[in-house]
Amino acid sequence: MEFKEELKKYQDIVNSELEKYILKEECPEKVLNQSMEYSLMAGGKRLRPILIISTYQLFKDNIQQCMPYAIAVEMVHNFSLIHDDLPGIDNDDFRHGKPTNHKKFNEATAILAGDGLLNGAYQVISKDIKNTHYQELPSKLQVFEEFSEAINRLIAGEYVDTEYEGKEISNQYLEYIHKNKTGALIKLCVRIGAILAGASNQEIQELGEYAEKIGLAFQVKDDILSEEGDEKVLGKPVGNDASLKKCTYVSKYGLEGAKEILENLTKEAIKKLEPFGDKAQFLKELALYIQNRNR
Amino acid sequence: MEFKEELKKYQDIVNSELEKYILKEECPEKVLNQSMEYSLMAGGKRLRPILIISTYQLFKDNIQQCMPYAIAVEMVHNFSLIHDDLPGIDNDDFRHGKPTNHKKFNEATAILAGDGLLNGAYQVISKDIKNTHYQELPSKLQVFEEFSEAINRLIAGEYVDTEYEGKEISNQYLEYIHKNKTGALIKLCVRIGAILAGASNQEIQELGEYAEKIGLAFQVKDDILSEEGDEKVLGKPVGNDASLKKCTYVSKYGLEGAKEILENLTKEAIKKLEPFGDKAQFLKELALYIQNRNR
Repeated sequence: MEFKEELKKYQDIVNSELEKYILKEECPEKVLNQSMEYSLMAGGKRLRPILIISTYQLFKDNIQQCMPYAIAVEMVHNFSLIHDDLPGIDNDDFRHGKPTNHKKFNEATAILAGDGLLNGAYQVISKDIKNTHYQELPSKLQVFEEFSEAINRLIAGEYVDTEYEGKEISNQYLEYIHKNKTGALIKLCVRIGAILAGASNQEIQELGEYAEKIGLAFQVKDDILSEEGDEKVLGKPVGNDASLKKCTYVSKYGLEGAKEILENLTKEAIKKLEPFGDKAQFLKELALYIQNRNR
Repeated sequence: MEFKEELKKYQDIVNSELEKYILKEECPEKVLNQSMEYSLMAGGKRLRPILIISTYQLFKDNIQQCMPYAIAVEMVHNFSLIHDDLPGIDNDDFRHGKPTNHKKFNEATAILAGDGLLNGAYQVISKDIKNTHYQELPSKLQVFEEFSEAINRLIAGEYVDTEYEGKEISNQYLEYIHKNKTGALIKLCVRIGAILAGASNQEIQELGEYAEKIGLAFQVKDDILSEEGDEKVLGKPVGNDASLKKCTYVSKYGLEGAKEILENLTKEAIKKLEPFGDKAQFLKELALYIQNRNR
């Protein structure tokens, strides 16, 4: 199967699974549920759940085993987008070419929708763990712990990003922000897929390093797109980072420097997949896709 | 021991345990950790963790078993206070007589501190569950699931409260708001204590009903204090609800009507404790304390 076709197939799997988790019943908080659904179904790339599923498939086929975690991670990702976009943080009006949650609904709803998605992720996990056979509990509990740690890192990364907005920062801090803000969740996804599929510690380690590279590559590419992307394709304004004086790979290393870093990270990521041979073809192409995407 | 002394003893246990969970290390997100600590240690009554511990003690003495959950619930409670106080929701400047989190720090920090406390609660739970002997796992997993469901209710209740601010609402909706916004977490605490201590289903059920009554009583008393309390003792402005046209028991039933409801709820709560005899003395006095508190 062509990569684009395979990616689409995975996106469809994730989207139809997500639909099952969206509550549509009549209840006093119906609009809150609608606002969570709005962000969740606004057309993200589903990179994170796809990383879980495709890593799991390196080892095992019964992907239903990892689906609750794929859903939970996508909920967390959307929680972080909704809160980052708030007037009190990045104050963004558009995301995926649509009004951000607080623009479509209002600020109170957006704050609580973010909270609801973060908590909802744990609700999904708690139900899955409760229904797990005791033999499989150790890997699920490992995942639960790593899940909460990664979100902790995500929040810390977002905080440092916000605190240093408009200020000169060291390379060390720039890396810290991205390792935490984007990298932690991406690494978590690959580790979840591997842990749930029963991979060896060495395999989990190597795949985790692949994830670190593509996580950083993803952020570098984001910074490049924010500088020179096509607003229409991207669905959000370009050049915003510069006007907010955000610290990015482009502001730090220049456009060409950032592109070189991106290329090296992608090569290093692909190298980490060598032990997995042909089975890792999709993950390899995913790294190239992250490098070459235009949105 | 006098009730007030015993309450103080419990508060000291909770406060010194909370101190252990606060990260003080040097790190780029140090100020974020400080803002979480600021709210967590701002002088709350610790009602929720105390409910867990004192319910647990109806059955067992080794309270260290339930401490991680006492901490987690207090973190969640503070997450909800920080987010409720935000300019986008209630826009409150004072809490426990001190500036609210976003006033002391800033809005971005307050949003992320709330997120960090909610997620931090799950981090505490994940670590405890991972270190649990498999024989005790079923009750822990039950607690984990109920924990995530109660927070879901809390967020829904807060949403409905916000949505109906300044609008005429039915008695049914007023009860829905309070059952969810305050009641769900209080009921959860009592259930956690009972479940972790190995209480029977009937005992868990009865104690849950006690909790429902005191949870509603707590909210009714809050509404009464917001109307006629002493600003200095309360640590926040009085009469704010009326100016925000908030739907409260006082706006719905009048001051005298609300006081009658409060008294009946307290009596009914105490009745639920009868099967537990003298051991439930503290929980009985806690119900009276909720009725008679002035802050």
